[in-house]
Amino acid sequence: MVHPVRNRTQGNTSFSVLWFGQHYHSRKHVVLIWINTQLTVLCYPYVCCVQAQVLYDFTAEPGNNELSVQEGEILTVTNQNVGGGWVEARNSRGNVGLVPEDYIEGVNGNETWTATTWSNNNPFRFSVCYFITACDGDGDCCHVTVGSIYSFDEEWDDDSDDGKSTVGYGGSQMEEGGTMQRGGAHSTMKISLNKFPGFSKTPNPEVYLLTKSVAKGNDKLPIYAGEVGPVWLYPQIQLDCVVADPKKGSKMYGLKSYIEYQITPNTTNRPVNHRYKHFDWLYERLVEKFACALPIPCLPDKQVTGRFEEEFIKMRMERLQGWMSRMCRHPVISNSEVLQLFLNYRDEKEWKLGKRKAEKDEFVGVKIFSTIDPELPELDPGQVEQKYEMYSQFTRSMDNSVKELLAVGHLHWKRCTGPLQKEYRQIGKAFQNLSSVFNTSAYPRESTLTEALSATGKTYEEIAELVAGQPKKDLHFLMETNNEYKGLLGCFPDTIAVHKAAIDKVKEADHLVTMNKISQQDKHIMEKNLSTMSYALQAEMNHFHSNRIYDYNRLMQFYLEEQVKFYETIAEKLKKALGQYTTM
Amino acid sequence: MVHPVRNRTQGNTSFSVLWFGQHYHSRKHVVLIWINTQLTVLCYPYVCCVQAQVLYDFTAEPGNNELSVQEGEILTVTNQNVGGGWVEARNSRGNVGLVPEDYIEGVNGNETWTATTWSNNNPFRFSVCYFITACDGDGDCCHVTVGSIYSFDEEWDDDSDDGKSTVGYGGSQMEEGGTMQRGGAHSTMKISLNKFPGFSKTPNPEVYLLTKSVAKGNDKLPIYAGEVGPVWLYPQIQLDCVVADPKKGSKMYGLKSYIEYQITPNTTNRPVNHRYKHFDWLYERLVEKFACALPIPCLPDKQVTGRFEEEFIKMRMERLQGWMSRMCRHPVISNSEVLQLFLNYRDEKEWKLGKRKAEKDEFVGVKIFSTIDPELPELDPGQVEQKYEMYSQFTRSMDNSVKELLAVGHLHWKRCTGPLQKEYRQIGKAFQNLSSVFNTSAYPRESTLTEALSATGKTYEEIAELVAGQPKKDLHFLMETNNEYKGLLGCFPDTIAVHKAAIDKVKEADHLVTMNKISQQDKHIMEKNLSTMSYALQAEMNHFHSNRIYDYNRLMQFYLEEQVKFYETIAEKLKKALGQYTTM
Repeated sequence: MVHPVRNRTQGNTSFSVLWFGQHYHSRKHVVLIWINTQLTVLCYPYVCCVQAQVLYDFTAEPGNNELSVQEGEILTVTNQNVGGGWVEARNSRGNVGLVPEDYIEGVNGNETWTATTWSNNNPFRFSVCYFITACDGDGDCCHVTVGSIYSFDEEWDDDSDDGKSTVGYGGSQMEEGGTMQRGGAHSTMKISLNKFPGFSKTPNPEVYLLTKSVAKGNDKLPIYAGEVGPVWLYPQIQLDCVVADPKKGSKMYGLKSYIEYQITPNTTNRPVNHRYKHFDWLYERLVEKFACALPIPCLPDKQVTGRFEEEFIKMRMERLQGWMSRMCRHPVISNSEVLQLFLNYRDEKEWKLGKRKAEKDEFVGVKIFSTIDPELPELDPGQVEQKYEMYSQFTRSMDNSVKELLAVGHLHWKRCTGPLQKEYRQIGKAFQNLSSVFNTSAYPRESTLTEALSATGKTYEEIAELVAGQPKKDLHFLMETNNEYKGLLGCFPDTIAVHKAAIDKVKEADHLVTMNKISQQDKHIMEKNLSTMSYALQAEMNHFHSNRIYDYNRLMQFYLEEQVKFYETIAEKLKKALGQYTTM
Repeated sequence: MVHPVRNRTQGNTSFSVLWFGQHYHSRKHVVLIWINTQLTVLCYPYVCCVQAQVLYDFTAEPGNNELSVQEGEILTVTNQNVGGGWVEARNSRGNVGLVPEDYIEGVNGNETWTATTWSNNNPFRFSVCYFITACDGDGDCCHVTVGSIYSFDEEWDDDSDDGKSTVGYGGSQMEEGGTMQRGGAHSTMKISLNKFPGFSKTPNPEVYLLTKSVAKGNDKLPIYAGEVGPVWLYPQIQLDCVVADPKKGSKMYGLKSYIEYQITPNTTNRPVNHRYKHFDWLYERLVEKFACALPIPCLPDKQVTGRFEEEFIKMRMERLQGWMSRMCRHPVISNSEVLQLFLNYRDEKEWKLGKRKAEKDEFVGVKIFSTIDPELPELDPGQVEQKYEMYSQFTRSMDNSVKELLAVGHLHWKRCTGPLQKEYRQIGKAFQNLSSVFNTSAYPRESTLTEALSATGKTYEEIAELVAGQPKKDLHFLMETNNEYKGLLGCFPDTIAVHKAAIDKVKEADHLVTMNKISQQDKHIMEKNLSTMSYALQAEMNHFHSNRIYDYNRLMQFYLEEQVKFYETIAEKLKKALGQYTTM
């Protein structure tokens, strides 16, 4: 039972974090990674369970195995495979219980990791833990989150057919056995992680700030003055696609199986097939290329709440659809070669060639800014900083607000499907029991009342089911959309940090000129380039606002429509029950 | 701060239980009683806090100071003055917390009591406890329940103006000081308590079973064959009355104050005034006279949930109205001299004369059966027993069912006014916060959404208040009526026990004839009288059923009507909020 997490590609090396958790006997934290054809085990102290900080007070309901926590408290997450939006955690007093996932936030650890080869002769049993920080020998750290549903088989797929080399990779030094190999193995594990999203190091904008030339032709990303301010160039027909028809595929004589989705873009109307790992590859490319300028929301997490395969597949598909639609709606991303490849490739050969080309793309990281061409007057650094402050403040506030809504929604969901359903059932039962007792009276004028009472009881039992089923009907979409926004807003700090670093760099410019480290002309170039970065941020924020207004308008209308239906249905049912009583 | 409890009159002796609780320092249980002009203290072990048994499982919600208890568990109630339907109790492990009143039931203690004179020179401070069993030297026990709201002054009233003697009463032997006086005082306290309701001894029907003659004329209580079986003679116009206009009265130069209610019967339409203690006097008379044949529901308890005087007076009035209406609706009670006196007395003199006459009534206890005259064929003892079994079963089942409904209703009330209100407020707040954040975007196309979101937030805040206010609108009446039925059903076991004792006595008759203890003719009289008792029970049960069907029909219709309005109002409000969004 190995649960793969994420497949990441870095330069010429690819590795998949398959699983992490605790060694069943020693309770040491362990990560399994798949490096090309080699299954590798990373052990404590090079890997550790990251602690989580509590964002909001939470009061446990008794009998539910919950843990009361207070804002600011630090927890160790002991099991994230609980499902339903809960994680199991241990507080500083050693009490263990369930806490809503939305109420906590991972805290960075400061661990380094090493690798050792996994052997089938040395079987492991694991219990799963939650956040993991894994770090390389240089102290660059990376958070990975375990996937809880995926079968080992589904994503088990060595990427040797992608033709990657194993250069710079010390697989040969790895030893057999699930034990930790500190010394030798440590030096062999030099994967540079600092371009991955969520890493602690902000990309350095300096290399771009001093760039003089702007990309030409097709690579140019123009920005115009729109009605709402600077805007990207929007295509005449908005790209969209339908993710549908998940099919189980298999390879290796049926030993390994996977799910393949059919994606049909509105431009060609011709379906292409992709597995989750292809979406993940696309995500990695988009991050590499655009993340300094555009927040690229994470792919839907592998951890989904459904317990059964069908429910899980449906949920993942729904979320992949949401992610793809957001990518298609974006004027810059929709136009990118890599997305076009993903949606339009005609055969395996075209796909593989396209993949290799995309992986070799030079215009990645901060270089993306040199392709941006705002046809607008240059902004002075003061204006740039003001915009930066405003966006930084807005995205942080919205992030908090979205998290608050998720927390409240989560509680409400739990109450509807838990205590409220139970209570309405009890009310229904109490009326029905009273009806049964009345029925034994042997009094001749009983039947109208007992029948009406019994119908009332049944009505409240039906209401119990309506109440419990309602969150899936309305709250689900509200939560999904807000979860999407939570993910998107979580990308803004990194994107905005690049701007902040550029602003700080330009503030130093006068000093650097005095010190003769740069010329006056260099300073002007830096200011012009900073202005370009700001226009990119403004265009992106305007795109974000426009989408946000559309999404929340749609979402709130849908939610309220369903809520109205819900209350009207209940009123209607109760009216019907009322009609059964004798009028006096 | 002394809270009087109940004023009881017994033969030539009257005593008022003013207060009971624990001595502040010694934690000994103490009762203060007022005997004619003498304030008296009863101490442990002659008085003790009765323990309570848990009827239903209850799970504490954290942070509310509640105590989780399990069905069958025995608790010591430590404070009943909590209000809102809660009592404070201690479990066997020493944990103290709040438990819903409806979830527990008092358990008999086996204590005797003695008295000692209270002195102002020896001041006491008390903390209040709950159920008390007080017993006399013969082992007859009496439960009293503390009143929690009444001011000391309101019911403080010695009844010396009622002209009662102090014969048989050892007030002279009482000593000063709050200490317990076991020996001497014990022998002076010989109040016979066994005619009070709730006492452990069942009245002995033997004295009636051998009675040959039936009362004549006006005293006769006929039973007819109605459509539904044996029925009392119903009056042509149903008596009813309106209890209204509570007024504060005072005496002793304003030092003592009380509440006087105005009662207007539909027969004379002429109002009379009565204080609570007069209702209590009426109740005592009705119990003495009728309780062997008719269940006489207790007066509304002095313990009410309202914290403020006005709320309390309103609640008590509402409950006195319910109790009076039930007495007026009863064909036997409505026709009784004592109720007629209560409703129709013209002046103080008539009232006092009537009171003395009622207190001297000889046809009390089991003698009431000798006034009953069923104009129906005699039933054999087998038929009588069958009826008895059926009624016994029915009233027990209904008692359980009513308690279940009360328990569920109580939980629901608490959820609506507690967590649900809080949650809808949080939902409202979350939408409003999101609206506030959106409002800071400086994006030009924002206002429609932010206004609509803010209106949605306000709507959910309004829903929070609707949810919290709803129980008072609908559940209140359902709970009040079921509480009334709980009280009424609580009287049936005693009434039915008299029948059971008579059945057992008649079963012995053959044996007694053989032993020459009674004649064959005596046996026939016993069987005939048993048949009469059975007809009384049947008539009473048919009256009960007819009222029950009327009451529950009305109650359920009212409840459902209000529920429908509630859900429709919410749907309407949400529809209005929905209308504020832009249609897309």
